[in-house]
Amino acid sequence: MTSWKLAARADKMNPSVLREILKVAERPGVISLAGGLPSPATFPVAAFAAACATVLADDGAAALQYAASEGYGPLRRAVADMLPWEVDPAQVLITTGSQQGLDLVAKVLLDAGSRVLVETPTYLGALQAFSPMEPQAVAVASDDGGVMVEDMVARARGAAGEEAARFIYLLPNFQNPTGRTMDEARRAAVSAAAEAANLPIVEDNPYGELWFDEAPPLPLTARNPEGCIYLGSFSKVLAPGLRLGFLVAPRAIYPKLLQAKQAVDLHTPIFTQRMVAEVIKDGFLERHVPTIRALYKRQRDAMVAALEREMAGLDVTFDAPVGGMFLWARLPEGIDTTALLPLAVERNVAFVPGAPFYADGHGDTRTLRLSFVTATVEQIDVAIAALAETLREQLAHLAAARVRRELADSVA
Amino acid sequence: MTSWKLAARADKMNPSVLREILKVAERPGVISLAGGLPSPATFPVAAFAAACATVLADDGAAALQYAASEGYGPLRRAVADMLPWEVDPAQVLITTGSQQGLDLVAKVLLDAGSRVLVETPTYLGALQAFSPMEPQAVAVASDDGGVMVEDMVARARGAAGEEAARFIYLLPNFQNPTGRTMDEARRAAVSAAAEAANLPIVEDNPYGELWFDEAPPLPLTARNPEGCIYLGSFSKVLAPGLRLGFLVAPRAIYPKLLQAKQAVDLHTPIFTQRMVAEVIKDGFLERHVPTIRALYKRQRDAMVAALEREMAGLDVTFDAPVGGMFLWARLPEGIDTTALLPLAVERNVAFVPGAPFYADGHGDTRTLRLSFVTATVEQIDVAIAALAETLREQLAHLAAARVRRELADSVA
Repeated sequence: MTSWKLAARADKMNPSVLREILKVAERPGVISLAGGLPSPATFPVAAFAAACATVLADDGAAALQYAASEGYGPLRRAVADMLPWEVDPAQVLITTGSQQGLDLVAKVLLDAGSRVLVETPTYLGALQAFSPMEPQAVAVASDDGGVMVEDMVARARGAAGEEAARFIYLLPNFQNPTGRTMDEARRAAVSAAAEAANLPIVEDNPYGELWFDEAPPLPLTARNPEGCIYLGSFSKVLAPGLRLGFLVAPRAIYPKLLQAKQAVDLHTPIFTQRMVAEVIKDGFLERHVPTIRALYKRQRDAMVAALEREMAGLDVTFDAPVGGMFLWARLPEGIDTTALLPLAVERNVAFVPGAPFYADGHGDTRTLRLSFVTATVEQIDVAIAALAETLREQLAHLAAARVRRELADSVA
Repeated sequence: MTSWKLAARADKMNPSVLREILKVAERPGVISLAGGLPSPATFPVAAFAAACATVLADDGAAALQYAASEGYGPLRRAVADMLPWEVDPAQVLITTGSQQGLDLVAKVLLDAGSRVLVETPTYLGALQAFSPMEPQAVAVASDDGGVMVEDMVARARGAAGEEAARFIYLLPNFQNPTGRTMDEARRAAVSAAAEAANLPIVEDNPYGELWFDEAPPLPLTARNPEGCIYLGSFSKVLAPGLRLGFLVAPRAIYPKLLQAKQAVDLHTPIFTQRMVAEVIKDGFLERHVPTIRALYKRQRDAMVAALEREMAGLDVTFDAPVGGMFLWARLPEGIDTTALLPLAVERNVAFVPGAPFYADGHGDTRTLRLSFVTATVEQIDVAIAALAETLREQLAHLAAARVRRELADSVA
């Protein structure tokens, strides 16, 4: 029997308990508010079918052959044109989903032990993408407006003897998991302070187009392109199953990211790149994305209304997000959302507990993330009612236990 | 101006001189025998067009949604059924090209400084995929039949105080770059010796189906599945532009590879997975692959004939490969193929110099790799004639220089 010796980083990769519970939540009948799955009603199936036919008819051989690691030229130009600052297509690298952008950034910028700053809480997938390079993720104090400037600058520098942080990872628009958005004043302050502190920014913007009433302020990268890597994605505006994302990098490090990209998968599937370039070439996104915004806004409204109705009097707090896919809530004292999840699944509703999103391991166990994009308005109503019922039952249990304890104490 | 501090591994990533020369070779008029591009004539464009239409019509929403990191169930079953030993679909992981399999293997098995054994010479892309984990690649002595058992065992153990090698990376069928194939006796010996030495094998088999007269012997993995990770690909039997590969791993390490996979791109594009599952479901490959074999055999024959004709009397040696895509040749003494390449490109033919394929940095500078699959028979004839002319001219230069030196010596 051959015995395999694992790399140290692999020893640290452990199957997530959460993932196991959420697998149970995939059984028929459970309404999942857990995953970040875009509504399939928004996928432009007919446009893709037409694009596939065109791409294969026009130049099938090229669409199926090996291709440049940088990505498909017309798609790189389309990305550059789409962004609200001056971007040279030569700075655009097409990635296999923006998740791959995180892997490349980690490979190029992180040594074992390097400090990388993240929000509190932050996107779990980013922590997972960074972890194979064995960095130290440092949680920066954050409020409803995102990361707080003073703490960011202090942690960028580090303690005496510590190397400066390699970068800060920020998700300024409709953040995953909290749904919060950084306003103009905070962006200006974060951008200026990061530049002054020589702190590079890795800006992740998968949800930026999903605004409901007004577009969010300019990206951080637009304010200081040489100090930022920008990650974007077609997953939320077209379809995630194509795994098509991109990054925009300063000339100083683009060649390194490109070499890392070449080593991981040679290039992103050229067929899907050409498909998407074909779909979007005539202003398709300008017509299509507003329909996604309208749908998600209706579903957010439904979730907010359902929470206000069903959770009334239960000491549940949340802010209504102004875009994106997620709503972040905090349950009453004494509730641990990780313990609550299996009870909720029994009542056919699933969510994601908030604690794992905290990089420092001291997550707020009362928090949870609810997605309002996958389920329909009717399903949201049913799911939030079921969640409220689960919560009420759990609170009753806690109250009963407290009464028993007090009785026991008074008898003793 | 923000200054970016790179990871140590990124400092070592340098733009390849070779890549720059080969970029020149992409200009119109140059016949490239350099890249490993499958013949576009073999891409089943019509079958893909039909599959796209079916997949989008039958279940477009699922084909465009996020999907399982393990890969598409029916495709995993098809892969398991395709392989010539008992494979549980649960051990199959779909990857974004088999190149990604190499990245995942490196992440899970290699620490900085770990020794990884490779053939002499070996696939350059594997060295590039491993290098971000900063291992030490150790070249094992190899002959025309592949890696030599005695040296493999000695290097597996390592010198006193060295940790045992983490694995050996082997490409037993029509190897890249040499085109050589490991025969049955060598496979049996390598497999037994590796198992006895507790040396895991990572077996890469992108070309195995491209045999000309008879199928190669059983894979190494079939002989000891618990001691091997097997990498395969649809790039050479369907189309590389879809970036669709797979790996088969023992139960002991599959979960770690899966977690690494999830962190790098969540999953391989589900749309292309469903496309390919649709294309191959009714025995398509059994009809299609023989046409590729026949084409490549004709082109191999053309290249062998052209080399024998054009290089006659030039002390050029090579073995005719019995499958795959590549022919490996050795030029006369005094010739450095890296120096020869720009001269060949001037005559409109490109190849890949052999030296970079040697992990120990002491490559045989007289070697080169020629692909016989991309160019047509007519182009192969023209290209080999141009290469012979380049070589003759270079030999004449060398002879003239030697005469001048001898004259100068006799005068002095």
